[in-house]
Amino acid sequence: MSEPRQILFNAVHMNCIGDIAHGLWTHPRDESSRYTDLTYWSELAQTLERGRFDTLFLADIIGANDVWQGRPDMALREGIQHPINDPLLLVPVMAASTRHLGLAATVNLSYEVPHLFARRLTTLDHLTGGRVAWNVVTGFLDSAARAAGLDQQLAHDARYDRADDFMALSYKLWEGSWEDDAVVRDRAARVYTQPGKVHRVRHDGPHYRADTIFLSEPSPQRTPVLFQAGASGRGKDFAARHAECIFVAGNKEQVAQTVRDITARAQQLGRRREDLKFFVGLVVIVGETEAQARERLEEYRRYASPEAGLAHFSAQTGIDFSRFDPDLPITNPDTQAVKSFLESVTTQSQGKTWTVRTLLDQMTLGCRNVPVVGTPAQVADELVAWVDGVGVNGFNLIRTVVPECFTDVVDLLVPELQRRGRYKREYTPGTLRAKLFGHDRLPERHIAATYRPGVQASGEAVAA
Amino acid sequence: MSEPRQILFNAVHMNCIGDIAHGLWTHPRDESSRYTDLTYWSELAQTLERGRFDTLFLADIIGANDVWQGRPDMALREGIQHPINDPLLLVPVMAASTRHLGLAATVNLSYEVPHLFARRLTTLDHLTGGRVAWNVVTGFLDSAARAAGLDQQLAHDARYDRADDFMALSYKLWEGSWEDDAVVRDRAARVYTQPGKVHRVRHDGPHYRADTIFLSEPSPQRTPVLFQAGASGRGKDFAARHAECIFVAGNKEQVAQTVRDITARAQQLGRRREDLKFFVGLVVIVGETEAQARERLEEYRRYASPEAGLAHFSAQTGIDFSRFDPDLPITNPDTQAVKSFLESVTTQSQGKTWTVRTLLDQMTLGCRNVPVVGTPAQVADELVAWVDGVGVNGFNLIRTVVPECFTDVVDLLVPELQRRGRYKREYTPGTLRAKLFGHDRLPERHIAATYRPGVQASGEAVAA
Repeated sequence: MSEPRQILFNAVHMNCIGDIAHGLWTHPRDESSRYTDLTYWSELAQTLERGRFDTLFLADIIGANDVWQGRPDMALREGIQHPINDPLLLVPVMAASTRHLGLAATVNLSYEVPHLFARRLTTLDHLTGGRVAWNVVTGFLDSAARAAGLDQQLAHDARYDRADDFMALSYKLWEGSWEDDAVVRDRAARVYTQPGKVHRVRHDGPHYRADTIFLSEPSPQRTPVLFQAGASGRGKDFAARHAECIFVAGNKEQVAQTVRDITARAQQLGRRREDLKFFVGLVVIVGETEAQARERLEEYRRYASPEAGLAHFSAQTGIDFSRFDPDLPITNPDTQAVKSFLESVTTQSQGKTWTVRTLLDQMTLGCRNVPVVGTPAQVADELVAWVDGVGVNGFNLIRTVVPECFTDVVDLLVPELQRRGRYKREYTPGTLRAKLFGHDRLPERHIAATYRPGVQASGEAVAA
Repeated sequence: MSEPRQILFNAVHMNCIGDIAHGLWTHPRDESSRYTDLTYWSELAQTLERGRFDTLFLADIIGANDVWQGRPDMALREGIQHPINDPLLLVPVMAASTRHLGLAATVNLSYEVPHLFARRLTTLDHLTGGRVAWNVVTGFLDSAARAAGLDQQLAHDARYDRADDFMALSYKLWEGSWEDDAVVRDRAARVYTQPGKVHRVRHDGPHYRADTIFLSEPSPQRTPVLFQAGASGRGKDFAARHAECIFVAGNKEQVAQTVRDITARAQQLGRRREDLKFFVGLVVIVGETEAQARERLEEYRRYASPEAGLAHFSAQTGIDFSRFDPDLPITNPDTQAVKSFLESVTTQSQGKTWTVRTLLDQMTLGCRNVPVVGTPAQVADELVAWVDGVGVNGFNLIRTVVPECFTDVVDLLVPELQRRGRYKREYTPGTLRAKLFGHDRLPERHIAATYRPGVQASGEAVAA
């Protein structure tokens, strides 16, 4: 008898008051307005660790959501991911208050200097004892490009080309510069590092150049665990090449297809199904009884902001829905992309005629996700159906009212899943990658391994 | 009777094992090899707070010290600021373990994207409750430029020109984008931010461009407390314009002159003497008796590395001293700069003929600083002489053997200074700037204030 497939939990939040399910910061029990306070984050991390969550993932955005009405007013008023603080700086705080929880953050690579960015991630991997993950994104907001002094961002596929170059240089720094036994810390001989075990990184790529030895000594995982959420063909190729944890969206049939598709692309590159973990985003509302869960949903709806959800959707698609007649079908060609996008991310939308009004009706909790609502057993049934029937490995649990959206999962849903043998009762010791994949470092079949010393001529030893 | 002048203490360390006094990581009691461990930093911060230190300052470097012998071997072997991790990521850890200690870090602005950098500092100012300071540097290592893909760094004065442009944009983001009452967090009205109180920053400078509203809401200090250490004429002008805490070096006569010089330059810009705090770097070894202090010095010397100190000096000056005959006077023209530099940073060097051997003799503790050694009363006398006679406000206490170099100061020297009425017994409440200068924000007479809304047309409100 084979063991039932285990379920992974990744809590999703951002360093701001309005992440995905908009408007809920106004709920009287929501504490996300404390986001500038250290203790908000250390307490949250402890709650998640109590519930044996695998990771807390902090998404990020580095421009204003200003497509709606062509200005950021709605985003500021409703707090749609703005103001937003740096997510990486929360990682040390949460690492100090926990021992096992994985700590993941988005960093948009488009505006980073690779060797300084690589040092930040390595520093965090040291400080967390190897619990860091990076969600690789290339951005989608022209406002972010303008904030960085550019007129507009690169085109979609060109962003991924640049990202491939960024990854190549990052792997050289993380995997190729310092050998495992370079650092000896020999006080008697007064040798901290053996220079002959440190290699110069030379990179002359289409987008990035560098000539350096990496600033940091090797951290437990070297390359952080890599998250990615590519939905386009080019994005899926990128995920198949680089990612370890992949965020997927859509209904069950669509997601099953995406999992098969990305897995096949990865296998063509020599990777294996077990090198990949797929996470689907869900809004979960769980109650001791179904009536309590339904009541909570209705209560949340009174504070949610469908308008903010739609304004956010405008930023994501680049289409200003404020200009549309609310009751006319969205049919003009430039919104075909929107329709397919919407159909791909909701589970009850096939064949529907979309208008702005029906879009708003869809966004009951200020986002496009249809919440999974019910008793622990009912919600667990749905999660198991995703894992066993669709092939995902876990869930991105999207924040609603914090902290209760997570304490409810910890106190009600996790015990139910544990009773079913579907969820760990204790953490596996070791790094995040060891917990998820059984090894601290990326496997030999990952592209990063080609940049290791001795694998190819990625650099020369500093000393003879 | 006027109150005796108070003495400020700024502990100096780096996120590495070899900062300034090289070789001491090999001392059996030195714990800096734990620098990758969170608890090393949280414990250090608590020690300093127990001793009512004003700040812990984390210096930084982002390239290899590879001038000596034209390669980084010595730097790697001896751990001369390499490997080195990111300092900013230590700030949240130390903030979580303390309540008052100011937390300062160097960031070389030359490779930063201004609006992302500004967000990092603002995030830290939020998380620390307004205890963050930034040491503004433009770098001096060509290796840092090559690591970032450039052939070499800008020339010295051009780096300061770029820095002025960087500061102008940073002030616009920190001071000019969000009004104090922009954020209302009104749950009932569902208004987090009033868009009419948020201003678009437009910057089209010689080096930096941006068109954005700042990502972060205002933090307690807005602009972090600004540290700087300009020694050249151009550097002093930069300090006079921007800096609040200024690091100075030299013998007493030289430092007195520098304090007068920078103060006069600042006053010409409308600033006041009380807007500036001057800190001189010192290596202090204090013992209960003079014999104990001397014994400790001798013990430290057995672990210190003058060679590493000289290799570091090579990186700082760009001159490879390994090529020199150790016993011939250093007289050729390109080392005149070295001689003046050396005379400026040591107190016993006037009129001396320098050779590589005498340079090495000077570096008894692996650095150019002549240690101040003695009983609490003897060391206190010397500090008081600096404060009363020279006009500095405090001291950069350079790390030797950690943590005892700081616990000795906390347990022996601080009580002596407190008995003399020269050192605070308790912290003043509030932000770091309030503790040092009596107000949370930069004063109206600082150049940053010219970028505030209403002061000049620095931006337009987002909404009508």
